[in-house]
Amino acid sequence: MAGDKKLVEAITSMSDDFAQWYTDVVKKAELMGYSSVKGCMIFKPAGYALWENIQKELDRRFKETGVENVYMPMFIPESLLEKEKDHVEGFAPEVAWVTQGGLNKLQEKMCVRPTSETLFCDFYKDEIQSYRDLPKVYNQWCSVVRWEKETRPFLRSREFLWQEGHTAHATAKEAEERTQQMLNVYADFCEEVLAIPVVKGRKTDKEKFAGAKATYTIEALMHDGKALQSGTSHDFGDGFAKAFGIQYTDTDNTLKYVHQTSWGLSTRIIGAIIMAHGDDSGLVLPPRIAPIQVAVIPIMQKKEGVLDKAFAVKEQLLRAGLRTKIDDSDKNPGWKFAEQEMRGIPVRVEMGPRDIEAGQAIVVRRDTREKITVAIEELADKIKDILDVIQKDMFERAKTHRDEHTYVATNYEEFKDAVANKAGFIKAMWCGSRECEDKIKEDTTATSRCMPFEQEKLSDVCVCCGKPAKSMVYWGKAY
Amino acid sequence: MAGDKKLVEAITSMSDDFAQWYTDVVKKAELMGYSSVKGCMIFKPAGYALWENIQKELDRRFKETGVENVYMPMFIPESLLEKEKDHVEGFAPEVAWVTQGGLNKLQEKMCVRPTSETLFCDFYKDEIQSYRDLPKVYNQWCSVVRWEKETRPFLRSREFLWQEGHTAHATAKEAEERTQQMLNVYADFCEEVLAIPVVKGRKTDKEKFAGAKATYTIEALMHDGKALQSGTSHDFGDGFAKAFGIQYTDTDNTLKYVHQTSWGLSTRIIGAIIMAHGDDSGLVLPPRIAPIQVAVIPIMQKKEGVLDKAFAVKEQLLRAGLRTKIDDSDKNPGWKFAEQEMRGIPVRVEMGPRDIEAGQAIVVRRDTREKITVAIEELADKIKDILDVIQKDMFERAKTHRDEHTYVATNYEEFKDAVANKAGFIKAMWCGSRECEDKIKEDTTATSRCMPFEQEKLSDVCVCCGKPAKSMVYWGKAY
Repeated sequence: MAGDKKLVEAITSMSDDFAQWYTDVVKKAELMGYSSVKGCMIFKPAGYALWENIQKELDRRFKETGVENVYMPMFIPESLLEKEKDHVEGFAPEVAWVTQGGLNKLQEKMCVRPTSETLFCDFYKDEIQSYRDLPKVYNQWCSVVRWEKETRPFLRSREFLWQEGHTAHATAKEAEERTQQMLNVYADFCEEVLAIPVVKGRKTDKEKFAGAKATYTIEALMHDGKALQSGTSHDFGDGFAKAFGIQYTDTDNTLKYVHQTSWGLSTRIIGAIIMAHGDDSGLVLPPRIAPIQVAVIPIMQKKEGVLDKAFAVKEQLLRAGLRTKIDDSDKNPGWKFAEQEMRGIPVRVEMGPRDIEAGQAIVVRRDTREKITVAIEELADKIKDILDVIQKDMFERAKTHRDEHTYVATNYEEFKDAVANKAGFIKAMWCGSRECEDKIKEDTTATSRCMPFEQEKLSDVCVCCGKPAKSMVYWGKAY
Repeated sequence: MAGDKKLVEAITSMSDDFAQWYTDVVKKAELMGYSSVKGCMIFKPAGYALWENIQKELDRRFKETGVENVYMPMFIPESLLEKEKDHVEGFAPEVAWVTQGGLNKLQEKMCVRPTSETLFCDFYKDEIQSYRDLPKVYNQWCSVVRWEKETRPFLRSREFLWQEGHTAHATAKEAEERTQQMLNVYADFCEEVLAIPVVKGRKTDKEKFAGAKATYTIEALMHDGKALQSGTSHDFGDGFAKAFGIQYTDTDNTLKYVHQTSWGLSTRIIGAIIMAHGDDSGLVLPPRIAPIQVAVIPIMQKKEGVLDKAFAVKEQLLRAGLRTKIDDSDKNPGWKFAEQEMRGIPVRVEMGPRDIEAGQAIVVRRDTREKITVAIEELADKIKDILDVIQKDMFERAKTHRDEHTYVATNYEEFKDAVANKAGFIKAMWCGSRECEDKIKEDTTATSRCMPFEQEKLSDVCVCCGKPAKSMVYWGKAY
């Protein structure tokens, strides 16, 4: 394939320039391309295949909790967007407006959905009449548009892909439980499938979603010590229900407002996979999400029998359920290794004439580069074990990195020093005031990531103002 | 559930008013809802689940032929849309235009994609340099927007869901082969999975896709005798490549234009499922595409042991891989039957105390209402057999209907009579002129559906002008 030369050219090293390393990996692992539509990206096959696996895995977990998928229109009439005051203030400045349909100017302009709360509410107000219609636990997979000024592949672009769940419940308690349940689905998915440890917690009022009563988040730490918000779940209480008039007749024959939630996870998470696991040779994919898990690379493939055996091994691994490809191109093995490493394929199987004669092959782990000699007939079983170990090790390494880059600050000097000189999460007490949150951001650029569910009492007073503390907060620079 | 009463209320009978019958089924089987966004529909869970199954099945078939999924931006800058002359003429009058992003007017307006040839071409022109970069066989699943004036659920709406494949090849021959290959994928999918027989053929120049060299189509016949274009595959030759400058260096070191194809199938096909199989009791779903294949309905469920046994049967069927649900609501069995029928679930299992005592249950086919007594322990195997028979019978019935409603016209009087008095396909010879095609449409409202691959020589002369005929054409009124 053309482009191979580019593919295995050295990429910028992480320690030299993390942002450039990220861009290099995205480009050379062929995850994404730039389009001539300003601010919009192209998901190439390797990038989209990751999203397909994420969808498959999350969708299964959603459905196990009773979620049903639907699809709502991509447009929101201006009057509908404006129905909930906080919501419109949060989103109106960053939407794309359709003003013309066909050859005619529209009577009312419509935005391309930046998120679909208003559409679901408009639907629910007619759909929900009785307690028998509840709960509604709907989700959609779609693209949304937010008119961002600066864009970066996966992390921020004018159009991105996501899922957005929107539920309606009879009681406040049930809505709150669903909010937490979906946060846990996200957290388990990130940890079990993506091997990314997350901190679960609640957003401060400053950082919560426009229109929400409470926003919960999972926050992950990247290699460079910056935080990445990886999924959010919002409890709306009955705020939207009151704005849209979504009422139901309860068992006691009285009219009540529903309580709602929404929750979303986007293609941004692919940025997290890259930045939590990648290294200076490229992408490192956790086996459970890798579109290709095994690359079979024949050595001296022109020698009789080598290619035949390599193809036989590929079939053997495919039959065992391992996502396998073979590289039988005429490139030399070194280039093939570099390409497998750039693309983050969890293991490669090297096999040359001498290996085959000895009835064995060399399995090389992408994450550690450890080489393991395995009898050919045992390859499938052994590789499965190795992939399990890789998955576990990747999580443990990411967790160790996260823990080693989580700092405690008990006074403002320590806090400022930590932000300036240590990259990572900073745990510090907070009085709960917007003023301190604003001041911290202005002084240090760090923002509150979340008030973690697992609270610790680090001191009695706010790290910023010294007044009595209300909660411990994770702070950090964020993507 | 609320709405049950509505659900089982009688629907308009097909023979009284086919269009109203269709609308009733869409509404009462809860496939789709109207939104307050003019011309856009809401896919409800039962409708979207059908689309999910269609996606799963088609996507698998695509990938078996080497297709890779990608995702392109949803916007097309005006200058990009205008690059291919025929294409822009075909689409520009019916697109939605974004003119404002955030708080600013855009320097160049962009349309929401009505189809993505121009975006793929813009991408390919940079991506393809050498013969080694070919072929590109990409597809995307997305929504597209066409500013239609009149809309009908699934059949025509301003936004709809589809897949669009876009390929680039080194030679004209390879592009033509891919065009036909994908048409065959669609045809096989329709016949094997949706139980809808199709006529494969080529569109006349009048009916072909804007910018295509040749458009191939599969055409299906609905209950009311109207045709529904169910999937199309286009050979672009090197027309787009020349407009966009997509060239590659061939093995002989000369610069050549690529040859391209595109092919799409949309949520319109759900309209075909409804209108090819439905009856006066509602939807009738082919087992292979049905989101729920079996409804277990306990009779006298308050009697001891009935519900336990019904749940045990449900588990047994689920374990056997049958998509099963149980209706243990407090509605009476008659209502449950009507609901299962309205939703088109292929079989229901009725079981009351006496059946259970006798170790049996009654399996009722949705399509024929035939009742089959089956020993409970044999239910899974027997139902699998019954579903296979239903799938086969549904296809045969649809084919018989299609064949019985396909007429031959050898002169213009016969032709006009057939259009006026017989609903169905009309086979007739055609001279190949646009004039006759236009005249036929004006005189009769029938349009050319396709020039079928299986040609017959019905006479020597054009049914309209009497000049020498070039090919046999299927004509009909169409959705």
